[in-house]
Amino acid sequence: MTAEAGARERSRRQLARVLTKIEAGDPDTVAAVPALAVDADDSWIVGLTGAPGAGKSTLISAVLVHLRRLGQRVAVLAVDPSSPLTGGALLGDRIRMGDHIGDPDVFIRSLASRGQLGGLALAVPAAVRAVVAAGYQWVLVETVGVGQSAVDLAGLADTVVLLVAPGAGDSVQAGKAGVNEVADAFVVNKADQEGAREAARDLEGSLRLALRKPQSWRPPVLLTQAVDGEGIAELVDVVARHREHSIGSGDARRRRQARRVIEWRELCTTLLLQHLEEAISDDDGSVLADQVAAGRRDPPEAAQLLVHRLLTEGPR
Amino acid sequence: MTAEAGARERSRRQLARVLTKIEAGDPDTVAAVPALAVDADDSWIVGLTGAPGAGKSTLISAVLVHLRRLGQRVAVLAVDPSSPLTGGALLGDRIRMGDHIGDPDVFIRSLASRGQLGGLALAVPAAVRAVVAAGYQWVLVETVGVGQSAVDLAGLADTVVLLVAPGAGDSVQAGKAGVNEVADAFVVNKADQEGAREAARDLEGSLRLALRKPQSWRPPVLLTQAVDGEGIAELVDVVARHREHSIGSGDARRRRQARRVIEWRELCTTLLLQHLEEAISDDDGSVLADQVAAGRRDPPEAAQLLVHRLLTEGPR
Repeated sequence: MTAEAGARERSRRQLARVLTKIEAGDPDTVAAVPALAVDADDSWIVGLTGAPGAGKSTLISAVLVHLRRLGQRVAVLAVDPSSPLTGGALLGDRIRMGDHIGDPDVFIRSLASRGQLGGLALAVPAAVRAVVAAGYQWVLVETVGVGQSAVDLAGLADTVVLLVAPGAGDSVQAGKAGVNEVADAFVVNKADQEGAREAARDLEGSLRLALRKPQSWRPPVLLTQAVDGEGIAELVDVVARHREHSIGSGDARRRRQARRVIEWRELCTTLLLQHLEEAISDDDGSVLADQVAAGRRDPPEAAQLLVHRLLTEGPR
Repeated sequence: MTAEAGARERSRRQLARVLTKIEAGDPDTVAAVPALAVDADDSWIVGLTGAPGAGKSTLISAVLVHLRRLGQRVAVLAVDPSSPLTGGALLGDRIRMGDHIGDPDVFIRSLASRGQLGGLALAVPAAVRAVVAAGYQWVLVETVGVGQSAVDLAGLADTVVLLVAPGAGDSVQAGKAGVNEVADAFVVNKADQEGAREAARDLEGSLRLALRKPQSWRPPVLLTQAVDGEGIAELVDVVARHREHSIGSGDARRRRQARRVIEWRELCTTLLLQHLEEAISDDDGSVLADQVAAGRRDPPEAAQLLVHRLLTEGPR
């Protein structure tokens, strides 16, 4: 290992420690991570989302290998919902980290919320900023496309790629979920499977319907077979073209500005809810909780009392 | 229609209007709904959860028909995650309301969050209380068993039933999600399908492992075929036995006490976040937002400023 690679390896280990603190919700660490520069374009954040089983991890793995061949430093953040009871990951598709263990220019990490205040809404943007600050040129963020998470990704990534499995009406559901409106590119993976071409065609059709207004970037639909690396070069090329377009049009700048404001709002919420937790747990709060449990005070009335106290008397 | 049935029909229409206001997040309506009496056992709240496609709606429909034959008044609340972009329901399996349209003793309603503050966390318990107050003896709450919602149900229902589809490793995933720990009964539906008996056996096995401590209620595993009504009488019987056990042991009372405290906490959060929204939108908040967007102030610093102002100067 060269001296330079050794330094990168040390920085990688330090990054891992920072992310552990961010994941644990440590507010000082979150505050200390440098803010994402509004017009930094040294790194590019690609969000990949899709239903469980669509093949996200395999696709990310193939993209990672391709980018490494191009000599790029790549970080992967896998974001998972977490069961509050078991603390374990609910959806367990993971890139095999072993494949890249010796490579100081690859950083792979799963992020799970351990139920702390703010949770992933706060941890993920901070983790992305930490990875960007560590100099990775590509940040690939994997999220599960269920409910709101796909939409949250839009606020987080510079390019959003939506992965669709052939068949199973997945493309229809993607449309329903409103993800169409935030995806910059669509990938139908498992191109060898029956229905893949049809799924791509359906998707293109629904995009033509949805995107009636003329717009400067029309999300392309790609077919890939991640397991064999097929279509991966084309996907990376599409992302690179979207990046160029987005920087040129000012979209990238606007998205990053919006992202900073979103993060500010999340931080406000977290801070405020920390104060609420303290108020709920102090002596007065415990008395109220007992009254509510016993049915001597109704929840809405008790909530008014507590919030009024917090806002007029301030934190104790 | 008798005069009494006419009165019930009018009360049903009034309930529908109240739920619309609750769904819209109207704080006055939420506050006005009577609190769930800690030891009320005139009505029983049954939560049914399971993965999409497990057959929840069909099962609920069959249970509803069975309870109606027993002369019980039944309400069904279907809780859905909602896309913030489209405002539409993401997972669309619904009971056909038409089957019960003329019946004044049946109330069926979908609840979707329209993205307002507090969202479903606040709307669902308030909706349940409104339905209980309207005198329905059974409240069946359907939720999608993805991520945290199954667990939220535990705080909401008197009896939690987890529906498992045969095959697909569903029972394993149920275990992972920690739902095992909160379910009072398990149902393997589609008993005619291959793997149903095996799924039931696997589930019983994993329950034996999980429930090592002796406990007074051991969640039974049932096989049903909701489409034909098979196993439904047994399921209703199990729920009735759990109810009797839960009231006798004091579990029901403890759950409802805990539920009131949870609701109080949710209301505190919602109230506080309303104040935050106001502070973010007022003149000072807008100046901060501009500074954050432009990169002139980092999000953590700006968040500290805003929250400090809110807690020391109070709402404006």
